[in-house]
Amino acid sequence: MLRRPQQIPEAIRGKIAKARVARLATIDISGQPHIVPICFAYDGRVFYSAIDRKPKRVAAEKLARVRHIRRDSQVALLIDEYREDWKRLWYVLVRGRAKLFSKRTRERSRAICLLKAKYAQYAGGMLSADAPIIKITPERITVWGEAQ
Amino acid sequence: MLRRPQQIPEAIRGKIAKARVARLATIDISGQPHIVPICFAYDGRVFYSAIDRKPKRVAAEKLARVRHIRRDSQVALLIDEYREDWKRLWYVLVRGRAKLFSKRTRERSRAICLLKAKYAQYAGGMLSADAPIIKITPERITVWGEAQ
Repeated sequence: MLRRPQQIPEAIRGKIAKARVARLATIDISGQPHIVPICFAYDGRVFYSAIDRKPKRVAAEKLARVRHIRRDSQVALLIDEYREDWKRLWYVLVRGRAKLFSKRTRERSRAICLLKAKYAQYAGGMLSADAPIIKITPERITVWGEAQ
Repeated sequence: MLRRPQQIPEAIRGKIAKARVARLATIDISGQPHIVPICFAYDGRVFYSAIDRKPKRVAAEKLARVRHIRRDSQVALLIDEYREDWKRLWYVLVRGRAKLFSKRTRERSRAICLLKAKYAQYAGGMLSADAPIIKITPERITVWGEAQ
């Protein structure tokens, strides 16, 4: 079911908030799709994800997702949970715009607080004080399966 | 690490083959990214996924992933596993071309056999005899984390 963000029922907001991982799709410089798993926090309206201290092969600014978002802000975010009982499968597909915060703003501080509150790993040092933050503002949300 | 498909070590091929779910990113008709979770089989070279009997809101031919692939065959497939011990995280990102099989060919029959062998749900009736099959041929494979 295609819904506007404000129509997401409480039960689904709960599933999204509880999920520990999401998959972020971006468009690469040649117009092809790219996906990475991300940790994220959801405040009931927008999503935040950090370029954290998990090992990276390149500096934050050169990371694929960062380069892609700078060029094309349209992204898709998938939250789902696999179960062997297929009657219990569900997913939430969020399509929207991504924005990068690298300067210290009040919103960025709030995002870092939300991420640290959700992930003990971040509170334990996996998130640097100057980590770039990706904000995703949903434009369309599709809910499928048990989550409906 | 970026690898050519034939350079994927055995250990990683094992992780891919064991994974029960992958996430498939396509480009929609307006050039924006789209993702769905999919069941898949991997024969060590290519990936197969079926348009199966899990509930759909539209007929197979109108499914988003089918329409997208018909228009733009470039896809990305992500196989990963979330763990709270972030030192043990891994993912495999496959970028390549998708092709749809809807006619009864020998390759399509083989793909259906592989899917039924992997998923008891398919052997149990969740896969119709005329299910369209998506074949994904890797062009680039990126391996990150514990899977390296």
